[in-house]
Amino acid sequence: MFYIIGLGLSDERDVTVRGLEAIKGATRVYLEAYTSILMVQKERLEEFYGKPLIIADRDMVETQSDEILHQADEVDVALLVVGDPFGATTHTDILLRARALHIPTRVIHNASIMNAIGAAGLQLYQFGQTVSLVFFTETWKPDSFYDRIKENADLGLHTLVLLDIKVKEISDANLMRNRKIYEPPRYMSIPVAVKQLLEIESLRKAGILEADNTLAVALSRVGGGDEQRIVAGTLAELANHPEAGFGQPLHSLIIVGKRLHHLEVEYAEEFAIDREKWRSVASTVYGCALD
Amino acid sequence: MFYIIGLGLSDERDVTVRGLEAIKGATRVYLEAYTSILMVQKERLEEFYGKPLIIADRDMVETQSDEILHQADEVDVALLVVGDPFGATTHTDILLRARALHIPTRVIHNASIMNAIGAAGLQLYQFGQTVSLVFFTETWKPDSFYDRIKENADLGLHTLVLLDIKVKEISDANLMRNRKIYEPPRYMSIPVAVKQLLEIESLRKAGILEADNTLAVALSRVGGGDEQRIVAGTLAELANHPEAGFGQPLHSLIIVGKRLHHLEVEYAEEFAIDREKWRSVASTVYGCALD
Repeated sequence: MFYIIGLGLSDERDVTVRGLEAIKGATRVYLEAYTSILMVQKERLEEFYGKPLIIADRDMVETQSDEILHQADEVDVALLVVGDPFGATTHTDILLRARALHIPTRVIHNASIMNAIGAAGLQLYQFGQTVSLVFFTETWKPDSFYDRIKENADLGLHTLVLLDIKVKEISDANLMRNRKIYEPPRYMSIPVAVKQLLEIESLRKAGILEADNTLAVALSRVGGGDEQRIVAGTLAELANHPEAGFGQPLHSLIIVGKRLHHLEVEYAEEFAIDREKWRSVASTVYGCALD
Repeated sequence: MFYIIGLGLSDERDVTVRGLEAIKGATRVYLEAYTSILMVQKERLEEFYGKPLIIADRDMVETQSDEILHQADEVDVALLVVGDPFGATTHTDILLRARALHIPTRVIHNASIMNAIGAAGLQLYQFGQTVSLVFFTETWKPDSFYDRIKENADLGLHTLVLLDIKVKEISDANLMRNRKIYEPPRYMSIPVAVKQLLEIESLRKAGILEADNTLAVALSRVGGGDEQRIVAGTLAELANHPEAGFGQPLHSLIIVGKRLHHLEVEYAEEFAIDREKWRSVASTVYGCALD
């Protein structure tokens, strides 16, 4: 059996009991490299599981999956991934490959950023499509996310914005010298994300991402106990908030839609940089009837 | 500390290790009544946790939360809910109440139907807003869901349709005699849901829910190992498929949007009632380029 097991969002204790049993029973256990980078160290997981882990980078999972699937029709093999196997990063490729090889598969679900964002108090059924925001460079500023956010905004819906991660990058200098030296991983911070959003707004001018009139919520390490950070405010407030205040990466950002309900305002107020400002924008710009 | 702990979607082993530790450490543990109805028996959970459980029905959680929160500033109290605490049914009310009482709270996340539907192979970031479908009666056929599905469909997005549950209903006859006798719980089946969708389409005629031209995917017991059922087909196929083929409730339904990607078609084909039909509608109606 080939298992793909979601580890949840924070540390080794977020695996489900069902997932833990499958790990303990597996002959080989792969850890998708993203996971160890984002959450806890490999060694900590190994100690918790009582099992050695084989690191599988994203390339291996996507293009060399036969190595992972080797003999999985005879023994149990597990691939561990951060969040849920069908979360922001899906694993349908390797499952399709297993199917082609007639290897039975089982998916063990967990929380992912796609549902854990509910922790902000904004209703999940009021979210439109999810968008991704990549690091801009001087010459490359892809802005198709803007059209998607606008589609959601026009319906009054919230938008989850997933922020870019760069791992295993090679600098231009090293590339030219053919040196396979990886740069340290980079995670987009909330202030950088907001500045990119506002930059595109200034070009496209549809008025959906306004510094002082658009509310947003930043989340990190959702469910991670004391490490969890949720910060709410206008885009301008988030852009100017100290980076340390947003906690450890990965960060995600929610753009608040106009169908905003007063209970959502009230719940998220707990996380506001400035409660008065939060309520006043919700009331005057979003039209929420507050006490 | 007041804990709200998501139990995931299937049985007692879907709780996270973090959640299980919190349950074992709690002085009182409440089980939201929905949970025991939908998943496993209370006794099975009690045995697994080694703890007695107090049943809390939806009314109690919503309107008598002070009883649940009693002394939670001094001892640990846990409320167990199916899925994730911020899933389709949210628990912000009781968390707001705890906040007002200055009781520290912690949420332990898990998979919910809002992210586990990824198991169908349709990309989560291609979903629009989620809708609910209630049981129609002769005189009451609320159809606002139709506008929401149309909004999603106009953008080419998928729609998750959550199907009605009726628990603790009292019949008109018993109501009139003032007898508090509850009817057995009812869960909307996939064929009933599809018939209701088609009924509203026949009235509204926007052409977004067509029997032979609209693809949909039905899911039940996602992640529940052998109990999981995923069935894909046209609305007509789903309406005429034997009810037993959809597995045990709760059921959910995905209406497939026109931005459908060929990898989504390929993955969900595994679940199709009729693979040829599935591919042919995806190709001719949805415009997917398939091999």
